[in-house]
Amino acid sequence: MTFDAVSFDSVVAALQPLDDQAARQAAEHHDRLTKPRGALGRLESLGVQLAGIAGVSPPPVPEPATVVVFAGDHGVVADGVTPWPQEVTAQMVANFAAGGAAINVLARHTGADVLVVDVGVASALDPAPGLLARNVRRGTANLAVEPAMTQDEARAALDVGASVAADAVAGGARALITGEMGIGNTTPAAALIAACTGLPAATVTGRGTGIDDATLALKVGVVERALARFRNEGEDDALALLASLGGLEIAALAGFIVGGAAERVPVIVDGVIALSALAVAARLAPAALPYCIAGHRSTEPGATAALEHLRIEPVLDLELRLGEGSGACLALTVVQAAAKVLGEMATFDAAGVSDKG
Amino acid sequence: MTFDAVSFDSVVAALQPLDDQAARQAAEHHDRLTKPRGALGRLESLGVQLAGIAGVSPPPVPEPATVVVFAGDHGVVADGVTPWPQEVTAQMVANFAAGGAAINVLARHTGADVLVVDVGVASALDPAPGLLARNVRRGTANLAVEPAMTQDEARAALDVGASVAADAVAGGARALITGEMGIGNTTPAAALIAACTGLPAATVTGRGTGIDDATLALKVGVVERALARFRNEGEDDALALLASLGGLEIAALAGFIVGGAAERVPVIVDGVIALSALAVAARLAPAALPYCIAGHRSTEPGATAALEHLRIEPVLDLELRLGEGSGACLALTVVQAAAKVLGEMATFDAAGVSDKG
Repeated sequence: MTFDAVSFDSVVAALQPLDDQAARQAAEHHDRLTKPRGALGRLESLGVQLAGIAGVSPPPVPEPATVVVFAGDHGVVADGVTPWPQEVTAQMVANFAAGGAAINVLARHTGADVLVVDVGVASALDPAPGLLARNVRRGTANLAVEPAMTQDEARAALDVGASVAADAVAGGARALITGEMGIGNTTPAAALIAACTGLPAATVTGRGTGIDDATLALKVGVVERALARFRNEGEDDALALLASLGGLEIAALAGFIVGGAAERVPVIVDGVIALSALAVAARLAPAALPYCIAGHRSTEPGATAALEHLRIEPVLDLELRLGEGSGACLALTVVQAAAKVLGEMATFDAAGVSDKG
Repeated sequence: MTFDAVSFDSVVAALQPLDDQAARQAAEHHDRLTKPRGALGRLESLGVQLAGIAGVSPPPVPEPATVVVFAGDHGVVADGVTPWPQEVTAQMVANFAAGGAAINVLARHTGADVLVVDVGVASALDPAPGLLARNVRRGTANLAVEPAMTQDEARAALDVGASVAADAVAGGARALITGEMGIGNTTPAAALIAACTGLPAATVTGRGTGIDDATLALKVGVVERALARFRNEGEDDALALLASLGGLEIAALAGFIVGGAAERVPVIVDGVIALSALAVAARLAPAALPYCIAGHRSTEPGATAALEHLRIEPVLDLELRLGEGSGACLALTVVQAAAKVLGEMATFDAAGVSDKG
């Protein structure tokens, strides 16, 4: 892809299907390796997917990887959906830049780089190494009462995500990991997942950072009001949905996912926020979905609803509910292992091991 | 521990409870880190366990790690419980020594060393680097018709495992990972798990490497006959159980697990074979269990039965059914991440992040 022309539309236009022949070769190669057929379970299906993504078997090991943490704020916090003050979004961006957050620790551990992108933080941020200033708007409007953003703003955030993905791959990344930070963002995620799956707000809305029963009831009511408002607006295309119920970091994530798919690299998707972005991305550009790997099953009910809707199984289930890209970052090791198994294991013939009778 | 005196009895005598104070300090520290309380799920509980194991918070990162693959053969293959020829055990030992098996690939990927121990292979093996010759007996007897081994042989295999664990830790290992290889060994594992849990043979016996319905029915019958024979022998202590229904590599694994616990290092336990050893180890030396981490939920039904019996939750569920230590080796990355989170994440105070209101 050429660099300077990267937009969401350009990456959608560049999407290709997976390479079926490479995937088939990987599946056949698995049956020659020194193990019972199918015994490596999920590592085998991931290896086949990686071959289809890369267009070659065995697939290259997806490294280095880059976690991109898109940060944005949410007007809906005015309704009391979270006990955390909005300023924590900006404080956590500083924590990411300083290397002290969970995602920094996990990315160092798994060998991934971390890039933070301000796409919608409410306050002006000081420049910092590893922080990209791409602010589209200083926080969304309150989706309980009005569209979170305009469609132009949603499109601008999609473009940010798409171009960040292209730049990361141009810079050498061979796997992309979705990360995010935004106080209040499980509320728009629940609204988007409810709208995409058709499930009731109460089914897909969770406790986020750990809210109490009263706050959860309030949050469900907020999501219901937002959904009713959106239905009344009489629009139902995916861009309108994203603008009306989404978040700036969620829109950027959707662009990032499709951008990674256009570059033919695996995109490891994290928890409920990333899955809400993926649900929208799969409507905007269905051909991006086969490039995605669900890294982790968040404890948020919306995450499981989105996974079932998209018919994808997460790699890990570690009861995380942090976001930032934490679960996807841990899944990277398993995804890389899947490629190495195909590339490095001995065959029955080469190792002189008898196949079963 | 002194080296030359390591036996199973000596490691049992050396077992200590976890350090509750260090575990409590780790739990308290988690609540000061820049994340919602409890949001790191399983990483938090693993971190607390690691602190209790090491006796200090934050716990040291459990590295380097050593996977020990204990290999043994099984007389029960004469009854047709598996389509794989017995010679594959020895062939796979050569494959391990050459670095071409799945466990070699996964251990290189996660930074673990691999040591192979012949504790019960039926044929004489050529010396090879990374292969330790500790053969107690050239394969077990057919447990369907007679005790698999004598109690003296079971004790000798327990001693092998205990001393290998002590040597690995003396050599620098700070985490131990259980591995095994033995054609036919899901049959003794099912018998041991049935005996330890009280569940019927049909509930805990699985398809192992992928046997068909007819072979599965035959295998269940073999396990039932073995259990009936053992009951008729009128003994029910754990050593008699292990000798009557076990395998040499399973006995060595039980010794290895207790040996690692005595050295106060985490022991990451793999699939159904390792869990059958752990079920026996937990009867022989209950104080070893808190040092163990179940790495992976094998698709074998006996694995889930043993996990429930022992009340431990596996870290991963990747639908593996290979053994060798493959699932536990992949879990190592998560276990190490749990320690790094405690040691490296910023606190709310240090990062200037507001805690929730």
